[in-house]
Amino acid sequence: MSGHFALDGRLAADTRHVASLPLCELLLMNDARFAWLVLVPRKAGMVEIADLADTEQRTLWSEVNQAAAALRACAPCDKLNLGALGNIVRQLHVHVVARREGDAAWPGPVWGSGAAQAYAPEALAQLIANLRNALA
Amino acid sequence: MSGHFALDGRLAADTRHVASLPLCELLLMNDARFAWLVLVPRKAGMVEIADLADTEQRTLWSEVNQAAAALRACAPCDKLNLGALGNIVRQLHVHVVARREGDAAWPGPVWGSGAAQAYAPEALAQLIANLRNALA
Repeated sequence: MSGHFALDGRLAADTRHVASLPLCELLLMNDARFAWLVLVPRKAGMVEIADLADTEQRTLWSEVNQAAAALRACAPCDKLNLGALGNIVRQLHVHVVARREGDAAWPGPVWGSGAAQAYAPEALAQLIANLRNALA
Repeated sequence: MSGHFALDGRLAADTRHVASLPLCELLLMNDARFAWLVLVPRKAGMVEIADLADTEQRTLWSEVNQAAAALRACAPCDKLNLGALGNIVRQLHVHVVARREGDAAWPGPVWGSGAAQAYAPEALAQLIANLRNALA
């Protein structure tokens, strides 16, 4: 539990930074197949939701709601998918994904579903700008 | 949003009843490959977490924590997996799964991973009894 928070290297490589919320780093998966956010509490040594104090958990779910609302404002969404798995990357992180019927993994989960397709740079910059606007 | 709550038929077929918590029905997936609970808020017409009022969301996450603690007390667990997908069954439900390294879907998600293997009746009854004790 001690030590400084540092974002897991795999999460850092797979995502782009959107915003620093009070508790979490808000990241966008660099995968144009899905509008997909990841929230990472800025606390060292967290693995399970229950590792967070009750008040932090409350903040986490509130930030998940904010992220979900921003995502819906910026991307088509037939169903939100929420997940906290951590089987591969143990650092506590929560996924919020805007799913569309017929998307690349539909109706299955996005996790473990094929290889990411990076955004074109302009599309990535535009989506991040839109998400920041929606959060503001 | 109106009407009476009725458990989705697919969820009913795939699970066994464990407990009625203040907000949610707590169900055990009848799949011996994974120790896997599902929580279903007893409110008609709920699809997304955000369809619940703030206080109900708080209760939901508190009941998810209770379910997770009971699961860990009754089954080996290297990592908890939490998910709210609803791509197939739209009625709002939250999955809590005790994952073991090397289990039938490891390190992928359990959702969409092969066919369920029903518990032997005695094992099912024993696990449900243990879960009820752990919740008490």
